[in-house]
Amino acid sequence: MDKILRINVGADNGPTYKTEALGDYAGFGGRALTSAIISKEVPPLCYPLGEDNKLVFAPGMLSGTTAAMSGRLSVGCKSPLTGGIKESNSGGQAAQVMARLGYAAIVLEGKGDGDSLYKVIINKEGIVIEPDDSLKMLGNYDLVDKLKRAYGDKITCISIGQAGEMKLSAASVAITDMEIRPNRHAGRGGVGAVMGAKGVKAIILDDTGMGMRKPSDAERFKAANKEFVKGLRKHAVTGQGLSAYGTNVLTNIINEAGAYPTHNFTRGRFEGCARISGEKQAEIETSRGGNATQGCHRGCVIRCSGTYVDKDGNYITKQPEYETVWAHGGNCGIDDLDAIARLDRMDDDFGLDTIEMGAAIGVAMEAGLAEFGDAEGAINLLSEVGKGTPLGRILGCGAAITGKVFGIERVPVVKNQAMPAYDPRAVQGMGVTYATSTMGADHTAGYAVATNLLGVGEAVDPLKPAGQVELSRNFQVATAAIDATGMCLFISFAVLDQPETFQALIDMINAFYGINLTADDVTELGRRILRMERDFNKRAGFTAKDDRLPEFFKKEPFPPHGVTFGVSDEELDRVYNF
Amino acid sequence: MDKILRINVGADNGPTYKTEALGDYAGFGGRALTSAIISKEVPPLCYPLGEDNKLVFAPGMLSGTTAAMSGRLSVGCKSPLTGGIKESNSGGQAAQVMARLGYAAIVLEGKGDGDSLYKVIINKEGIVIEPDDSLKMLGNYDLVDKLKRAYGDKITCISIGQAGEMKLSAASVAITDMEIRPNRHAGRGGVGAVMGAKGVKAIILDDTGMGMRKPSDAERFKAANKEFVKGLRKHAVTGQGLSAYGTNVLTNIINEAGAYPTHNFTRGRFEGCARISGEKQAEIETSRGGNATQGCHRGCVIRCSGTYVDKDGNYITKQPEYETVWAHGGNCGIDDLDAIARLDRMDDDFGLDTIEMGAAIGVAMEAGLAEFGDAEGAINLLSEVGKGTPLGRILGCGAAITGKVFGIERVPVVKNQAMPAYDPRAVQGMGVTYATSTMGADHTAGYAVATNLLGVGEAVDPLKPAGQVELSRNFQVATAAIDATGMCLFISFAVLDQPETFQALIDMINAFYGINLTADDVTELGRRILRMERDFNKRAGFTAKDDRLPEFFKKEPFPPHGVTFGVSDEELDRVYNF
Repeated sequence: MDKILRINVGADNGPTYKTEALGDYAGFGGRALTSAIISKEVPPLCYPLGEDNKLVFAPGMLSGTTAAMSGRLSVGCKSPLTGGIKESNSGGQAAQVMARLGYAAIVLEGKGDGDSLYKVIINKEGIVIEPDDSLKMLGNYDLVDKLKRAYGDKITCISIGQAGEMKLSAASVAITDMEIRPNRHAGRGGVGAVMGAKGVKAIILDDTGMGMRKPSDAERFKAANKEFVKGLRKHAVTGQGLSAYGTNVLTNIINEAGAYPTHNFTRGRFEGCARISGEKQAEIETSRGGNATQGCHRGCVIRCSGTYVDKDGNYITKQPEYETVWAHGGNCGIDDLDAIARLDRMDDDFGLDTIEMGAAIGVAMEAGLAEFGDAEGAINLLSEVGKGTPLGRILGCGAAITGKVFGIERVPVVKNQAMPAYDPRAVQGMGVTYATSTMGADHTAGYAVATNLLGVGEAVDPLKPAGQVELSRNFQVATAAIDATGMCLFISFAVLDQPETFQALIDMINAFYGINLTADDVTELGRRILRMERDFNKRAGFTAKDDRLPEFFKKEPFPPHGVTFGVSDEELDRVYNF
Repeated sequence: MDKILRINVGADNGPTYKTEALGDYAGFGGRALTSAIISKEVPPLCYPLGEDNKLVFAPGMLSGTTAAMSGRLSVGCKSPLTGGIKESNSGGQAAQVMARLGYAAIVLEGKGDGDSLYKVIINKEGIVIEPDDSLKMLGNYDLVDKLKRAYGDKITCISIGQAGEMKLSAASVAITDMEIRPNRHAGRGGVGAVMGAKGVKAIILDDTGMGMRKPSDAERFKAANKEFVKGLRKHAVTGQGLSAYGTNVLTNIINEAGAYPTHNFTRGRFEGCARISGEKQAEIETSRGGNATQGCHRGCVIRCSGTYVDKDGNYITKQPEYETVWAHGGNCGIDDLDAIARLDRMDDDFGLDTIEMGAAIGVAMEAGLAEFGDAEGAINLLSEVGKGTPLGRILGCGAAITGKVFGIERVPVVKNQAMPAYDPRAVQGMGVTYATSTMGADHTAGYAVATNLLGVGEAVDPLKPAGQVELSRNFQVATAAIDATGMCLFISFAVLDQPETFQALIDMINAFYGINLTADDVTELGRRILRMERDFNKRAGFTAKDDRLPEFFKKEPFPPHGVTFGVSDEELDRVYNF
């Protein structure tokens, strides 16, 4: 994993490619690598869907090894949604496969002719880039089926659906899971629109014949990995909660905490909560012959995913995540898991961010385009996106554009990116992350919920501003570092709670690369990534004014707690004091 | 004209009002007053369609007097289109009538219930505010007809059409002309959306029984006005060109200069130019029994307007302005004046900015929603706005949103506001104004065309960057001052070319108010207004990055001259060095 593959889609006679050494980027992986490339090579003021933007796919430092949980792929670009730098992170098989094929990064550059659509086939023989107009406007599921028929059942696909081809700002990049289904997504920030603008429909990876990446010190690496896995299995969240009920275990917890944004962030408890909880979801999956405990990539030991099937046992979608169940569920007043699974499947098929779409539909409901609670209405709205109607394009551009076009004030976004499933008034540490993250509103950028509500670390009252800035800052720094390793972010519960598990992670990196990182070095890596990203955003025109929540979070008391967001602007401006 | 009328639409039991003395705002008029109130009273980060924004109507310092050309009304707010401060300026009767009724400003404040629609009736008896749901979703023409039937034929109306009620960012505020037709518009920046958000459909003014405002020194004022009118009549532009052919006299001139943005700013000459020129327009108007020479308010001596009639002599619309003829004409490849007049009428009726709509339709044509040159296609697109369909709402939100939703890079906007009828590559002084104006792209904010192409002042080569910053700065300062007087901006040709006409203007102000302004004081007033506005924008989050043209103006050479916009970022950042 020592080379970069650069594909120039703007060459005169169709796309060309070259591979090159990592060079200045040596030592970087995952988010560190995507953000370094974007930061250095993309003009911050460029048009995100134009020739100067680049789309970077990068496995993490430990991807492609036997390290547990190392299958996350970073997808980076200048975001067409936020206008700032973007790293969108996905599970699925692609990171491991890319890494084993030897690529630290694949970079799509230039601008196509706007008409041809390409597929890129990468295996141990090399690289082939071919136009294939027969793929045009296929959904991800039909696309992957077609590619499987053509390229066999060992492939891993990175692809876009109709939304990416239409260059909609909520378009995702789909990654296939172990069963070669396009149900893992780099969802956030419109990375799929950038792939669409490059005219690349799919990257088809096949690592047949390639081996695991080899550690510098195999014995030490193996021992560290064993200790690491032991730590994950020992911790209540990573060892039990997530595997039993998936991320949706959070529905009851966050609802109980009064922090579950219901009816477009109007109140913190949803009356239909029990009908869409993780417990209920697992029960349905199990009783219908689905699967409530499943990993999204080889080497996963947490197995937070599952398979959601219909009443006849037919696959509908992977187990919808907590944020998806919230976005299409509680946020829109919908308490029907079958409807939510359909919406999730449609999002995955069209290639859309489930969080952004749920938020956009919530705003559309506030505008009167459907009633809160109307599942068929939500399905109809989402169908419009796949069809590419004007209404569908509005929704597919996300919550901010939907609010703008329909004249709605209460739009839960920061830097134009929709907030996920934690109200910033009831989890104020998360509010700080939403406001200040380089990514726009993003729970994965600094998951203060863990301390505010889930008991990780020293208690910080979720309803008060005190201590939230430090909390969010620490999580943002730690997250950036973890996102560089290719590790699933869920390891952080065990890593932050159990010093020996954190040490095992560092030991793995050191044993693999033959280096001597300390915990401080890892923290400094996180800081360095954030500084790079923030510098890009500054050059793109962002100021402190962009590090703010929408006014209504400061004005509307949030039931049941009756609180508003209390962290002052001056406090928010302290987050990056490091 | 010594009081401010404040209408609070957000009071518990329906709108309330109060009048108060000018107080701190004494001495301000027009744009100076609207920008002072917005700057001081509106939180720069507020939601433009929310309770904290205000909509201010202010006649100029000389409005309501016998001074020629003093009928311009300033309409100010935080713009829902640009997010910055806005002064949108209109002719028509309202400024004179408001001034004679004694109001230096009418301020709409607070936020309505989102359901009730109000009308405000103001005459010498006082003020009445009434709900009137029968006015809902009326176009401006039907609305004004209805109001005339109810309130007689002495009224002047300030109103919004469907676009304002829908709170679309391109919505205008309509002002009736001398014939009580809603065909003069404060078009730019979405001021109509703010009026819609306040739930006020119409302000009905009647100055019956009120006299002209009285000067401090009547004799001196009369003499100065006489000298001023003499100067206007003597100058070729204000005395002949504008009256004979209206502003559309520019079509042939700008096209000949290769600066006429054709097919969404693709090239500088339009093959159909002769068919939509001012000369042709006047010929059609005259031959059909319309009128090619007409003022928009009492006291106008330039008379750049006219009446456009159909083949049977029936009124369609006022004589479409040069920018309108360009926006719906050359910019969209349409060379049919009858179609352009229909589009103008529709814009006026729905209450939309003709420049923004022409630019939005040009972008939509680039996206393939209609062919360039397809007049019926353009009419169909504009019809969607009146109907409030999703497509109509997209277009009605302006060119930037249209480009965003349809994934188009070539969108001619600055600060989200569409550029008017002068390509910034071929009139680089205008490019500096577009980039740096506090208003977004706006020709009236600093009309460098006058020097670059029309021979006013010392020559500055339109195709080169040298001298453009100073030129634009001087025009921006002078314009801000003129916009404070209530004077029509067209006086600037005579005022800038003829020192004695400038002095006559200053003499009028001095004689009216009994003060002793010098030319330097007037310039300083202009600077002060710009500083206030720029400070607001800065507090609203604007940085130097917002003072830039879209990339394509720096990359695409513009035929026939083959030039790109050459003024550097560093030069642009010097405009406000004063």
